[in-house]
Amino acid sequence: MSLGAAAYGVFSVGDGPRRLGALAGDRVLDLSAAGIFAATSLNPLLAAGPAVWREVHDRLADVALEEHTHPAGTVRMHRPFDVADYADFYASEHHATNVGRIFRPDAPPLHPNWKHLPIGYHGRAGTVVVSGTDIRRPAGPLGPGEFGPTRKLDFEAEVGFVVGVPSRGPVRCDDFAAHVFGVCLVNDWSARDVQRWEATPLGPFLGKSFATSIGAWVVPLHALAPARTAAPRQEPLPLPYLRGDRPWALDLEIEIRINGYVVSRPRFADMYWTPDQMLAHLTVNGATLRTGDLFASGTISGPARDRRGCLLELSWDGRDPLPLPDGGSRTYLEDGDTVSISATGPAGVSLGTVTGTVRPHS
Amino acid sequence: MSLGAAAYGVFSVGDGPRRLGALAGDRVLDLSAAGIFAATSLNPLLAAGPAVWREVHDRLADVALEEHTHPAGTVRMHRPFDVADYADFYASEHHATNVGRIFRPDAPPLHPNWKHLPIGYHGRAGTVVVSGTDIRRPAGPLGPGEFGPTRKLDFEAEVGFVVGVPSRGPVRCDDFAAHVFGVCLVNDWSARDVQRWEATPLGPFLGKSFATSIGAWVVPLHALAPARTAAPRQEPLPLPYLRGDRPWALDLEIEIRINGYVVSRPRFADMYWTPDQMLAHLTVNGATLRTGDLFASGTISGPARDRRGCLLELSWDGRDPLPLPDGGSRTYLEDGDTVSISATGPAGVSLGTVTGTVRPHS
Repeated sequence: MSLGAAAYGVFSVGDGPRRLGALAGDRVLDLSAAGIFAATSLNPLLAAGPAVWREVHDRLADVALEEHTHPAGTVRMHRPFDVADYADFYASEHHATNVGRIFRPDAPPLHPNWKHLPIGYHGRAGTVVVSGTDIRRPAGPLGPGEFGPTRKLDFEAEVGFVVGVPSRGPVRCDDFAAHVFGVCLVNDWSARDVQRWEATPLGPFLGKSFATSIGAWVVPLHALAPARTAAPRQEPLPLPYLRGDRPWALDLEIEIRINGYVVSRPRFADMYWTPDQMLAHLTVNGATLRTGDLFASGTISGPARDRRGCLLELSWDGRDPLPLPDGGSRTYLEDGDTVSISATGPAGVSLGTVTGTVRPHS
Repeated sequence: MSLGAAAYGVFSVGDGPRRLGALAGDRVLDLSAAGIFAATSLNPLLAAGPAVWREVHDRLADVALEEHTHPAGTVRMHRPFDVADYADFYASEHHATNVGRIFRPDAPPLHPNWKHLPIGYHGRAGTVVVSGTDIRRPAGPLGPGEFGPTRKLDFEAEVGFVVGVPSRGPVRCDDFAAHVFGVCLVNDWSARDVQRWEATPLGPFLGKSFATSIGAWVVPLHALAPARTAAPRQEPLPLPYLRGDRPWALDLEIEIRINGYVVSRPRFADMYWTPDQMLAHLTVNGATLRTGDLFASGTISGPARDRRGCLLELSWDGRDPLPLPDGGSRTYLEDGDTVSISATGPAGVSLGTVTGTVRPHS
């Protein structure tokens, strides 16, 4: 067999140590055993930079060592990298518009700044967990004198970007691929009632910081070439630092399942702001970029109901429950619900799946 | 001589390696050379927990080794610990009220949630720098189609709390000292024009993420015993998770200097929310607490003008310039300005000084 690495992750077998692995089809290649790259997390590979990324990729194409691979179903996956800073954007116009319509029905749905800069905030890096980790329903303050487990537990289907090469100054849009190693799926779990109560004026805090799930596999940028597509038209024309020659718009179809039932199919190509713009924005003030930084797109939503990326939108904050094929329905997530988000693109591009099951508050 | 450690930091001499040091008076004890604790950052000591913190402290009292100390003026100080997550609160009622009056003069100055929970947000851990680091004036988006170096560069005088012992679940107010190692000064530099334009609806981002300075010395909690004081009366009574038996209110007088001139003297005892409440809030949703987490109080302001902790308040957003003794005045910081913030308390308690000089945008 011959492997063309589609994704990188960290795995272990039985009680064995963590090792870097490359996924090809349904096999995981042990990069250490194959003499290609020895590490217990992706961070050393992330830091090594594009020349090494390319070299590792090229060596994988030559590998024909059955003995260094494991069936993907037999390994245990771990969080693929240590997250330095985690920033989350709000880059879908459809999502931001729906949120505005739900919470501020008498005002213009988009805030005046929204089309002038990619709005973002910093999340909690310490609570980023790997796909498959159970999500405990969090408690928090819900209103004046009111405290308890969230009654509005939500998912957010997002795509995340993993930084390899650090920077101490602004990164231009066109230098995106010199710094970003690859892409993974993100589920930014949210407690909407906590978030609503706390978020004025400094933004979300406890409503987001209890858990963010990421996919176990990080797909390197070069493997996404077949998915590159035209960027959306942006009007008004963004500031010069947000203009690149070839934006990283990606044709990825996201599929969201609750307990196995497909409930939505957002398209990443419907995003207004592109990831190269997010990176340029994140660093334009001189903010340090570090190996292991993760920035995510924000909820991916499209114009139609069946392309919305979270239950806040899918159930219109609970006013219009989302029917499930089993006869049930959801306003927000119930204990025991499993949310699985996957993404595929042209020519076999896949980001895999990020999944998590809601456990009761305790 | 005999040392009673007042603070811990990381220093180097000449081109030598980084070493853990204890400050006593104007001497720095090399903890490694003295055989007490060998490390190149505070993190291993932070992680070791209260029993080791106490043991290290006790051993320092016995040290009488002149040869392992250096005059403080001859060593170079480094960032004392690797910051895991950085959260910043907004715990001064006077500060939040002034901000409300400045930006929303026709509305109640405090948002409805303010007295029900300690409002906070996550900042960028990667841009936390040690005292003495120059601060480059950042550029960013300032309004529709408008971009450039900030015209409203500000400081924020704060106190920060350094987490030692991790937690995977809520930390009660009364368990504060089982997790928090100590305290340092913080200057949360802010670009008020960038912040104003970007911060709706997800909070501050580029307006804060270019630099946060921390003091070189972390003062362990036990050294702050003489500064403990009565907590402010809180009305309405906070939720049960925010009630401790002995809140960590601290009697510290902050002194803010611009180019050597004292411009304000905020008192930390004027804060509404106490640090044990901040920690309980930060973790009540199950958010992971890690060694090296830093959470800061937010701007420390008092009721009078000469006790306000940032230029936004001191100059009322530029409408009422702050006079300086040299005949000049400030609305916001000018290139070349040096801001120094120090803090002292009863019985010789001192947090040292955090300082930084503004360099032109380039």
